[in-house]
Amino acid sequence: MNLYTKIIILNLFFYRKTPYFHTTNNKFLLMKAISAGNCNVVFNEEGYDSINQYLKENKFSKIFVLVDENTNKFCLPIFLDNLSNKITPQIIKIKAGENYKNIKTCSTIWDILSESGADRKSLLINLGGGVITDLGGFVACTFKRGIKYINIPTSLLAMVDASVGGKTGVDLGSLKNQIGVISSGDLVLIDTKFLETLPTDQFNSGISEMLKHGLITSDAYWLKMVKYLEDKNNLDELIYESIQIKAKVVEKDPYENGLRKTLNYGHTIGHAIESYFLQNSGKKDLLHGEAIGIGMVLATYISFKKLGFPETKMHETKKTILELFTKISFNNNDIIKIIDLLKFDKKNYYGEINFILLEDIGKSKFDCQVENDLILDAFRYYSN
Amino acid sequence: MNLYTKIIILNLFFYRKTPYFHTTNNKFLLMKAISAGNCNVVFNEEGYDSINQYLKENKFSKIFVLVDENTNKFCLPIFLDNLSNKITPQIIKIKAGENYKNIKTCSTIWDILSESGADRKSLLINLGGGVITDLGGFVACTFKRGIKYINIPTSLLAMVDASVGGKTGVDLGSLKNQIGVISSGDLVLIDTKFLETLPTDQFNSGISEMLKHGLITSDAYWLKMVKYLEDKNNLDELIYESIQIKAKVVEKDPYENGLRKTLNYGHTIGHAIESYFLQNSGKKDLLHGEAIGIGMVLATYISFKKLGFPETKMHETKKTILELFTKISFNNNDIIKIIDLLKFDKKNYYGEINFILLEDIGKSKFDCQVENDLILDAFRYYSN
Repeated sequence: MNLYTKIIILNLFFYRKTPYFHTTNNKFLLMKAISAGNCNVVFNEEGYDSINQYLKENKFSKIFVLVDENTNKFCLPIFLDNLSNKITPQIIKIKAGENYKNIKTCSTIWDILSESGADRKSLLINLGGGVITDLGGFVACTFKRGIKYINIPTSLLAMVDASVGGKTGVDLGSLKNQIGVISSGDLVLIDTKFLETLPTDQFNSGISEMLKHGLITSDAYWLKMVKYLEDKNNLDELIYESIQIKAKVVEKDPYENGLRKTLNYGHTIGHAIESYFLQNSGKKDLLHGEAIGIGMVLATYISFKKLGFPETKMHETKKTILELFTKISFNNNDIIKIIDLLKFDKKNYYGEINFILLEDIGKSKFDCQVENDLILDAFRYYSN
Repeated sequence: MNLYTKIIILNLFFYRKTPYFHTTNNKFLLMKAISAGNCNVVFNEEGYDSINQYLKENKFSKIFVLVDENTNKFCLPIFLDNLSNKITPQIIKIKAGENYKNIKTCSTIWDILSESGADRKSLLINLGGGVITDLGGFVACTFKRGIKYINIPTSLLAMVDASVGGKTGVDLGSLKNQIGVISSGDLVLIDTKFLETLPTDQFNSGISEMLKHGLITSDAYWLKMVKYLEDKNNLDELIYESIQIKAKVVEKDPYENGLRKTLNYGHTIGHAIESYFLQNSGKKDLLHGEAIGIGMVLATYISFKKLGFPETKMHETKKTILELFTKISFNNNDIIKIIDLLKFDKKNYYGEINFILLEDIGKSKFDCQVENDLILDAFRYYSN
């Protein structure tokens, strides 16, 4: 077994640690399941009832829970507490972090499943952030040509982004999500209690994607999010609404032929920035939402220049993102290399780099071409 | 790049070598395309017209052809000769053989695609036997969450078995096809000219699967196949009919919930035998059809014992298979280890090993449980 993807099977239960400072108001009790294609997104207490019912009905031959070091410690005990007593899943633990979101880790998990006698009637439960849900989803969709899985996102980012839409996948070297399939699990459980254990930068990474949902769909949701950053109220409702936004888009265009591309706002440059920092040992790794936040500031500037996006809203976007994350320095060499990485973006066709841009908040255009000079200007706007 | 999965990109054309002795009668000119779900199976000259038309209509950004050392030499020149002049695909070559049907080879091909600027509008053409079509299909279905692909099976086995049904996949260690997805390419081209370059044992490996199509569907097709082995006539029609049989089954049950399982006749033990010989360095590797042939003799004996399969037909099955392949010796230790491998069969649920058995030719039953003692007896029947 490889040292870098050291994975061990645990059947031990850990105690829950002291929570971080985020608090959530538990109003999801009254929130109905959101349907996203063949997948149901369920919430909190009622969500656990749905899961227990689902496990009872499906009579799985074996149940596996995929966790990383952190979710094993902070989230697994909460999850197991809420699981029906009759079920004793087998735990598969991997190291935490984007560096392990690769095919090597998949191979190790496939081996564990195989050695543990998993068959086509087995279930994989992915309990963790986006790395766990993306990678675990891919492992499940390809093991014996597909076994069932459910996602339990534990980070805010995974709740509002990775949980819905069936995009599974792993990175290829430093290139993000190059290998994967589109196929949904049967259930997604959102339990906002998990957010209490989330470090602030991870939390803000999710806020960044929620802000994106505002930018691409409506002034109203954008303003609610800006207000949240001031008063920290009503997070649960905002999460619920964010998932509704994503589910609606994905339902209309599951295979990303058109509308769904708008969910990639800020991601064209954002992914390139993220890859560049990931592959560069002299740079600190950026969080996904952090890189996408920078990408959104840049895309908003380009939108202003090319499509007349309102200037005030552009400045507000930059200000809001910079409240979440410290400004990152880019020298000319960084920028040239980041622009070079744009060619690997999955939305590209025929060698053209395709941007999603905005005429205004809620008015997006996809497949826009952008000159390199304008991207350079956008970096300058972000940096000044 | 790993020595064992050394893959190089070639843009050289090789000359065709002297053909082996198989001859085919070119009656496919009059044979209509067979529809298998979203996939069309097209034949010979008209088939090339369909491919050229498909390439013209789809405006792919880049076209890649996956070959192995053998198909690069013997089949690629024929294929390129028939391709529209306007198209210059990029060739990706891998080593030949089941040993390279693994996730490592996939990783190398993903890397090559990525480095060569493949995007979501690129096409992968898999030109080769079952290893190439299974592995290439999986690579395509997962690269950037899925690009289009077409299969051009060059072995008889791949024509009648791997070409239709969308089962893509690779092995996990010595366990066959454990990782994969079910998803069809757009086109399959059958060009029986490729069979002229196929070694006899490889050819017989395909005959073995055609015999299986007879056993599971009809006395009529079984008898035609037995007759073919005597007079070597009408191979093309028999291939066409074999593909029709498979396409019909797959259309009714694409995800193998019932009927499709019958296509695995002889495969439960056959795959275990194949895996055992593959992982055992002291044993010669068996061809797929060879292992499945033994599996069919064993399954037919078990069918005779459990379901009253006619004794005369059982002896005829054994005789026919043994005309194709030299008898293999199994000692007790081999048999015990093969039975142990049965637990990894993809058709198993809840720890039970599920066999497909026959009441008579064309009358199959799936999900049958078989005692180990009877499997031992079946090995004895094969060996005596």
